[in-house]
Amino acid sequence: MNVQSRIGAESLTALDARCQIEDGTLTASHLLEACLERIDARDDAVKAWVHIDRDGARRTARELDAGPSRGLLHGIPFGVKDIIDTWDQPATYGSPIYKGHQPPWDGSTAALPRAAGAVLLGKTVTTEFANRHPGPTMNPHNPEHTPGGSSSGSAAAVADHQVPLAIGTQTGGSVIRPSAYCGAYGYKPSLQHFGNAGVRTNTASFDTVGIMARSVGDLALFRAVLSETPYKAPEPEAVSRPRIAFCRTPHWDQTLPETHAAMDETQKALTASGAEVFELQLPDFFDGLNRAHKIVCGFESVRNYSDELRRNPDKVSQDFMKERVEVGWASSLQDFREALRLGIRARTWLDAAMADGKIDAILTPPATGEAPHGLRTTGTAIMNFIWTHCYMPAVTLPRFKGPNGLPVGVQFVGRRHEDTRLLSLAAWADATLMNRAEAL
Amino acid sequence: MNVQSRIGAESLTALDARCQIEDGTLTASHLLEACLERIDARDDAVKAWVHIDRDGARRTARELDAGPSRGLLHGIPFGVKDIIDTWDQPATYGSPIYKGHQPPWDGSTAALPRAAGAVLLGKTVTTEFANRHPGPTMNPHNPEHTPGGSSSGSAAAVADHQVPLAIGTQTGGSVIRPSAYCGAYGYKPSLQHFGNAGVRTNTASFDTVGIMARSVGDLALFRAVLSETPYKAPEPEAVSRPRIAFCRTPHWDQTLPETHAAMDETQKALTASGAEVFELQLPDFFDGLNRAHKIVCGFESVRNYSDELRRNPDKVSQDFMKERVEVGWASSLQDFREALRLGIRARTWLDAAMADGKIDAILTPPATGEAPHGLRTTGTAIMNFIWTHCYMPAVTLPRFKGPNGLPVGVQFVGRRHEDTRLLSLAAWADATLMNRAEAL
Repeated sequence: MNVQSRIGAESLTALDARCQIEDGTLTASHLLEACLERIDARDDAVKAWVHIDRDGARRTARELDAGPSRGLLHGIPFGVKDIIDTWDQPATYGSPIYKGHQPPWDGSTAALPRAAGAVLLGKTVTTEFANRHPGPTMNPHNPEHTPGGSSSGSAAAVADHQVPLAIGTQTGGSVIRPSAYCGAYGYKPSLQHFGNAGVRTNTASFDTVGIMARSVGDLALFRAVLSETPYKAPEPEAVSRPRIAFCRTPHWDQTLPETHAAMDETQKALTASGAEVFELQLPDFFDGLNRAHKIVCGFESVRNYSDELRRNPDKVSQDFMKERVEVGWASSLQDFREALRLGIRARTWLDAAMADGKIDAILTPPATGEAPHGLRTTGTAIMNFIWTHCYMPAVTLPRFKGPNGLPVGVQFVGRRHEDTRLLSLAAWADATLMNRAEAL
Repeated sequence: MNVQSRIGAESLTALDARCQIEDGTLTASHLLEACLERIDARDDAVKAWVHIDRDGARRTARELDAGPSRGLLHGIPFGVKDIIDTWDQPATYGSPIYKGHQPPWDGSTAALPRAAGAVLLGKTVTTEFANRHPGPTMNPHNPEHTPGGSSSGSAAAVADHQVPLAIGTQTGGSVIRPSAYCGAYGYKPSLQHFGNAGVRTNTASFDTVGIMARSVGDLALFRAVLSETPYKAPEPEAVSRPRIAFCRTPHWDQTLPETHAAMDETQKALTASGAEVFELQLPDFFDGLNRAHKIVCGFESVRNYSDELRRNPDKVSQDFMKERVEVGWASSLQDFREALRLGIRARTWLDAAMADGKIDAILTPPATGEAPHGLRTTGTAIMNFIWTHCYMPAVTLPRFKGPNGLPVGVQFVGRRHEDTRLLSLAAWADATLMNRAEAL
């Protein structure tokens, strides 16, 4: 064991840690201890975890260190958003109703990393039912700012070097936005590319499991495990003169100066590296998609939480009542149908707009700006819901800073089911932005 | 209490029972006892239930009888397929792995009927994980024949007058096929019209909660409760010269003579009643949809059952291994993507084909024929998967008999999200078929 490699192991990417474990210069146990030490040092200031299983994780790490490689994530710790079940750790779904509840199974996205040798470190903070009512997590860059949500703990833990990989879920902007606010790499795949088993249903039309990591390569590695497909590194070198459509969305008036700067800078950098960058104007009917998204989420989630709303109404937050339940109960079947039909129309339009290589990726902000001040709300998903609604894969890269020194991301959105291609393009864009930052 | 009304209360439709309870000629307790007596008399021959909560149901019925109406289903017993959670009864999902498991919540489709005054009688038999490995249920018309699956117990219990309403789920043909085999009215709504919370995920792309009842009116009543929308009776009188497209599907060679006879007779009856009936030929690319459906189900379900396959491999059936796991592990990400894209294409084609009143409903068999002999398999979903894959609402009417005296149904499929219209058309078709049968 090389002591040098031990220092800062908690900051390694999963890919680097994996190499060091393969080389014998790092063990699963040492990597785990480095993460636990980081958590001990930082937990009061970040509060990313609702449950940590130190004993279980240490036992698993020791077993892994004593045996042959179990797979792609041999010895790599990971965190799971507390909206997803694990058989050996409690699940509360961010609600006091489920305090101490122990599910009998692992959700798909907990079982598959474990089967590939990953070490389940613990459950990360979710907002109530992966909705809007915040948990205790703070932005790791400034505890007075929100980490975003609903996957608050996963984004904060990864960005704060407490764990290299974590699982989140997105129904509006719950993976991409907190990743951008906290400074993590975030990836929301095309709908159903990761298994939803063991995820507490919010809005089945949109609920998508996603991931947080500290590099595009790690996103691709983790994706391979979660989709149970062979790992292939992203191929930035295969990206040549990509066609990038910059999209302001109908909600540009809500974006802040740091976002404008990040978008300008990204367009310049990509153009300088050979990309063809042009503007994508969404048709007028997209103006109605925000209302449609709220109606579908309200209609479905009020029905999916029928039990909680009736047997435990006093344990359901006012945020949930206002954001979802009131909308859900006010929406008629006709409203719901029309909203669903608008979604079909939007998906059809975007799928056609991106077909045949006309657009390789859409460049668009992952959030309106830096993480807002205050912990009472988790910010707005206004820059995310279109891409979630249209089932499209999205990646955010933490390449910029705002006026308060907080992270500002850039989001790339791929054509539906073209996740592999999007990750290669994101790797290329990330390298381009890094090189430019170094050159400046 | 009129004793006369007590006799045969177990055979009442939910709508009739509701009227009698409102009138004071029937009580929730008497209706429940009539159902329990029927179950006592028939359970050995049908085995529709995995769990019956007699004490809980009796307590609830007494409370309902002592108070004012709680809603649309005040005093009506119902059954829930054992793939859906209830907080006060165990859930096994048809698997020995979960023997004795008690969930902490009600699924959406258990909570909403209860909130509307319905009495949860018990959990009905599902095949293993709502897949193909059969449970103990037998066809109520002949115990040597399958009841179909995966919602075996719900279809059998409703058809056998053990309970007026029951919940099922459909990923391939799991509501419509057992309904047709057992002689129940079955309805699978458009995807996401009923809440999926509390349903054990099989294939999130297709999993749809559906219902069994003993009339089209009951389907509409139960639907209103489950979708939490106002009840409006189907309006057969509003149906005028409907445009009915008879579709053989690419799998007509698998259908049996009783199906041909039922389809012929239905076309004649509908034409005689003023319908315009014509043939719908699906384009050639639909030939590939069966394989695509198997790939998506295999790919998703093998990932959704990662935990069971790894921690309890000896408790997973060989049927599940063959039907799902082998297909899932043999399918590449590329296969999965291509299958998903074929589904988008099929949905787009059917949605356009039925737009602007070009087709009011598709007439097509709900199964290849009568329930097959034997209990080793639950029959084939070959006549169902297209409509499930395309998220379209479907109703089956139990209006015919086959050579063995077993039920043969007719299926009507509506345009996606046009469930209300489909139920009115089904009510019209049902009355038409009944009148014709009486006239012959």
